[in-house]
Amino acid sequence: MDKNLWELVQLVKQHSPLVHNITNYVVMNNTANALLAVGASPIMAHAKSEIHEMVNIAHSVVINIGTLDEYWSESMLIAAEAAHSVKKPWVLDPVGAGATTFRDATLNQLLQYQPTVIRGNASEIIALAKANTSITKGVDSTAKSSEAINAAHFLADHYHAIVCISGETDIIIDSQQIFLISNGHPMMTKVTGLGCSATAIIGAFIGITENISEAVAAAMALIGIAGELAVLESKGPGSLQVNLIDKLYNMTEKEFISYLKIERK
Amino acid sequence: MDKNLWELVQLVKQHSPLVHNITNYVVMNNTANALLAVGASPIMAHAKSEIHEMVNIAHSVVINIGTLDEYWSESMLIAAEAAHSVKKPWVLDPVGAGATTFRDATLNQLLQYQPTVIRGNASEIIALAKANTSITKGVDSTAKSSEAINAAHFLADHYHAIVCISGETDIIIDSQQIFLISNGHPMMTKVTGLGCSATAIIGAFIGITENISEAVAAAMALIGIAGELAVLESKGPGSLQVNLIDKLYNMTEKEFISYLKIERK
Amino acid sequence: MDKNLWELVQLVKQHSPLVHNITNYVVMNNTANALLAVGASPIMAHAKSEIHEMVNIAHSVVINIGTLDEYWSESMLIAAEAAHSVKKPWVLDPVGAGATTFRDATLNQLLQYQPTVIRGNASEIIALAKANTSITKGVDSTAKSSEAINAAHFLADHYHAIVCISGETDIIIDSQQIFLISNGHPMMTKVTGLGCSATAIIGAFIGITENISEAVAAAMALIGIAGELAVLESKGPGSLQVNLIDKLYNMTEKEFISYLKIERK
Repeated sequence: MDKNLWELVQLVKQHSPLVHNITNYVVMNNTANALLAVGASPIMAHAKSEIHEMVNIAHSVVINIGTLDEYWSESMLIAAEAAHSVKKPWVLDPVGAGATTFRDATLNQLLQYQPTVIRGNASEIIALAKANTSITKGVDSTAKSSEAINAAHFLADHYHAIVCISGETDIIIDSQQIFLISNGHPMMTKVTGLGCSATAIIGAFIGITENISEAVAAAMALIGIAGELAVLESKGPGSLQVNLIDKLYNMTEKEFISYLKIERK
Repeated sequence: MDKNLWELVQLVKQHSPLVHNITNYVVMNNTANALLAVGASPIMAHAKSEIHEMVNIAHSVVINIGTLDEYWSESMLIAAEAAHSVKKPWVLDPVGAGATTFRDATLNQLLQYQPTVIRGNASEIIALAKANTSITKGVDSTAKSSEAINAAHFLADHYHAIVCISGETDIIIDSQQIFLISNGHPMMTKVTGLGCSATAIIGAFIGITENISEAVAAAMALIGIAGELAVLESKGPGSLQVNLIDKLYNMTEKEFISYLKIERK
Repeated sequence: MDKNLWELVQLVKQHSPLVHNITNYVVMNNTANALLAVGASPIMAHAKSEIHEMVNIAHSVVINIGTLDEYWSESMLIAAEAAHSVKKPWVLDPVGAGATTFRDATLNQLLQYQPTVIRGNASEIIALAKANTSITKGVDSTAKSSEAINAAHFLADHYHAIVCISGETDIIIDSQQIFLISNGHPMMTKVTGLGCSATAIIGAFIGITENISEAVAAAMALIGIAGELAVLESKGPGSLQVNLIDKLYNMTEKEFISYLKIERK
């Protein structure tokens, strides 16, 4: 299994998948750099006039609603529909789910196009399920990732998606199995948008394999380990942001295998 | 006084205020990272469909017109009006005031919602006052911060705002007193958007105290000292941008107190 | 010649040209920092309501279509028309030319306003020529820069532009001469938007001299040499992005002259 994940890391470098991102303004630069560092080719494009063509040339699509507005919301829906109809894998990052009715309405529409993967923190995954059902009513929105598992199962079953709850332990859920990944470092929460980078890297990995659960596990392990190693050389979140990109780029198999903390349930 | 300012720095870390930013594309990433580094929680959101909800959940609002357009201008007005009506503190950064009639018209409308704080460089503060009155006619637009004091007094009196003129010496003016802060380093002007980061950090501090003048003084001192310390480890503006974030994150009380250069008039 | 180029580098610092950028979201921060590092003054503004005023106060204009949409496309056309009509030099970066019909249609319209300089990679230059003619039909879109020379000559002749094909060797073509610049490092392709930074730096240089070919050569040499020197101190593309800005800021004449690899044909 560990070997498989490292092989996926190598496959991304070999195939350099074209990843089409409709993502937020805050993280565009870092996301593009994270994708380049792991060996993928980022496209950032959101114009309604070109979404279809971009989805067609891409290997996978990343939709992140961080700084959405009415126009971008429509672009995301066009992209999700296009990805769904031509069977391109796509990943949804429901940033700020539950914060506003506009976000939840957009997310509800996006879910109809069945994301291949959903990645969010515990609160977002709970809010996403809540927006669709009453199943999670009463669940605390500041929940730890373990408390979001019911919500993730609901989303996984209902939309046939792999769901990744990121947190101190990342939990990857599909209909048959659960992976737990315990890499990463608390200082990573002080760098804006590393969750968004994780989502984009998932986008790269689902562009080169049909084993989606392993793709998500490899992506989350890669960024988590890169973060752990980068923290060792960092004085704070500023240098961590820089060193993390370096480490995504130059990580060795030995580092990956020896740091990986993964558990299958 | 010095002790008070450091206590405010600690309070931001303890309360982690939610700061809602409608800011410019150039600085969004750094602004979010600066807010995280000082212990605040940034929200970046500009969609008209969710402005009211975002203002309601935030502790304070930051409006920065750097890359405004017609849509963003409307969003900013909605946010300013909402902040004013529910009495959330908000800070205005009049980037490029005086450069175009569109900027000045937008700023004039924003001022009607009485920003809690206005922070700009000398030229911007002068242009902002000019846009509202003939009082500053003839004042050179490349003025040093001391020359903008009349303009700042006008704005402070007329809009009941605390006005901060940033420059080699930062001048903080309210109706009763003036603080002068002489921290910072010239190389900081070679990093894009550190003024915008200062404004956002002011947003964090006015989210946790009602003593607005001290909040602004603490914020300006914090970024100024962080800049001075970061320059010592930097080879140029690239590394300064990175080291500044690290220093905002790991500054000690001893560093803050020993570097602080503040004067009350 | 080498001496001339270094003199241009000094001229930018002395005159600090105001460079008006309508560029893409991914690179705005780095582009602004690159311009500050070389001594220029960046403006980032795209609102239709202020384009004319911004073009009027700027020394040069940079148009980069990276994350264009329908609104931004119109802004770019307004800016290009304004620059052309008041004879301000402007540079076009045709990011992703050939990828979608929307991009090509926008580029075709922009070309009517005769960019002073066009800078793109080989595929983009070929696509740009193709969008206007059948002359380059059959040319491989993954072409090396040398293969794009025919396309560049066509564009240079037809639009009276200086064309720069960037790649392992940068090729600068005007109607009478060709410059070849062989600075740079492969790791630079792993940092997002360094081509966009190159375009913006060209914008700075054409703002301070009427010798456009030498301005482009100086800009491309400066960023190429900065990249080579920065790689020596970098562990990967994350630190390269940072060190490159530092090196643009603190490069010495000795470094510039001893690293410069330029050939005139």
